[in-house]
Amino acid sequence: VSRVLVTGATGFIGHHLPALLRARGHEVHAVGHEADLLAPGAPQRLVETAGASHLIHLAWHVPPGEFWTSAENVRWVEASLALVRAFAAAGGERAVLAGTCAEYDWSDGVCSEARTPLRPRSLYARAKHAVHLVGEGLAEQAGLSFAWGRIFFVYGPREPDGRLVSSVASALVRGAEAPTSEGLQRRDFLHAGDLAAAFAALLDSPVTGAVNLASGEAVAVGDVVDEVARAAGRPELVRRGALPSRPGDPPLIVADVGRLRDEVGWRPSRSLAEGVAETVAWWRSTTLPAR
Amino acid sequence: VSRVLVTGATGFIGHHLPALLRARGHEVHAVGHEADLLAPGAPQRLVETAGASHLIHLAWHVPPGEFWTSAENVRWVEASLALVRAFAAAGGERAVLAGTCAEYDWSDGVCSEARTPLRPRSLYARAKHAVHLVGEGLAEQAGLSFAWGRIFFVYGPREPDGRLVSSVASALVRGAEAPTSEGLQRRDFLHAGDLAAAFAALLDSPVTGAVNLASGEAVAVGDVVDEVARAAGRPELVRRGALPSRPGDPPLIVADVGRLRDEVGWRPSRSLAEGVAETVAWWRSTTLPAR
Repeated sequence: VSRVLVTGATGFIGHHLPALLRARGHEVHAVGHEADLLAPGAPQRLVETAGASHLIHLAWHVPPGEFWTSAENVRWVEASLALVRAFAAAGGERAVLAGTCAEYDWSDGVCSEARTPLRPRSLYARAKHAVHLVGEGLAEQAGLSFAWGRIFFVYGPREPDGRLVSSVASALVRGAEAPTSEGLQRRDFLHAGDLAAAFAALLDSPVTGAVNLASGEAVAVGDVVDEVARAAGRPELVRRGALPSRPGDPPLIVADVGRLRDEVGWRPSRSLAEGVAETVAWWRSTTLPAR
Repeated sequence: VSRVLVTGATGFIGHHLPALLRARGHEVHAVGHEADLLAPGAPQRLVETAGASHLIHLAWHVPPGEFWTSAENVRWVEASLALVRAFAAAGGERAVLAGTCAEYDWSDGVCSEARTPLRPRSLYARAKHAVHLVGEGLAEQAGLSFAWGRIFFVYGPREPDGRLVSSVASALVRGAEAPTSEGLQRRDFLHAGDLAAAFAALLDSPVTGAVNLASGEAVAVGDVVDEVARAAGRPELVRRGALPSRPGDPPLIVADVGRLRDEVGWRPSRSLAEGVAETVAWWRSTTLPAR
């Protein structure tokens, strides 16, 4: 039986993973606290305690807004490399880590693992790409099978408020207005539960290197907002165009999902309408009626 | 008065730096032991002890041959990022770190900071480039002035035996044969003392980002060997072609030194003949006659 160490296992994406991995026949050692990785010597101790043959490392510092520029990203590079180093030294067999679509040069629109140049600009994207570069190089030396799952635009239950779907859904279920931008830019959205399933499928595949974990479909941000409004039954509360568009925001960011579909053999199980309906239902379940 | 923390200050390149920096009017806090950086919490303590406004970080794991692939490179990424993080948090003003020409895609031959694609392949080059990416991103956030000096091919006194100039010079001054490859490939060589002077000049300049620290001149490896043989007076001991060429070794690797010359305002003070003569004299001074 293989045993999987999962970091970030209580997070927005990671909380789906333990059940998905157990259903695939793995034993799971799940950790969800920053202290498990950021304390001095913690990655080494975690690897010793877990005794795992497989690793899915999702933990990172990602509070909405702040995470693009926070110096905490640098500590997570250090901790992530110490984790991979300890895991390789302990004879780990396979590691899957979480990258980001922000590693790509976005001027192309379509992001392909093989063809799109890499141009990480934000500190977050630089930090993630640094872990990819060094982790992959170390894995080659150590005989560790290493895959790098690039995350695009994720939504779903338990998403921190302040991102697109979470901010609109939380406002509408409270009966509050939801100001949005014009929303013409198109993005590649995936439900967090589907993303976790993609990580599990990638772990069980022999595929190495960078793999886009995404839907492959570009949807206008405004259409996602409409989907949320429909699910919430409150389209009249959406204030389209009340927020400015971000200057320089690329018109299109979508994944080439050829590797994911053809090599990993995975595709999403939820449509956008289904995923959004599930998310709005979750916000309803956690929201008290306005007093 | 500015105060410079220098790591790797007892090394092949770094041992030249304290005197050069003092001559430029800096106070110097020099450290030369791995334990100063690799022990848990050591970078933070070092920054506190040094109380420096400026940083030149040269320390790394570079034993000949082994360093391209050693997992120790990963520990040096962690330590280097912790050092830059601590230095930025302590209000450091300017940091200069050591990169490598192996960050570049070598298929071009000429390596330009602005134009040559980056394609680090070895674990060493990936590790160095990761520190560049993350260090530069962190510095932007923290308001720290950050420069990245890319090192090409270095020779000089105290070079560890086993590299090109050191292995030929040490053999010839012992009166031993020096087997070499055909040596048609051209490289950009710089004396370690000149390289240290380039680091000092870069520190004192306002230039940020990547800067090639090199001669800008491509010399055939065989011509360097001839220069060593001439300085040692033992050309008959050179066995040109006795070693195989490395498969895939690029025919040309030379720096575009436009930034170094025009923006930093620096050029080497030693010719290759002078630098090699100095190196051979050093090997003579440390070599006992064969018994």
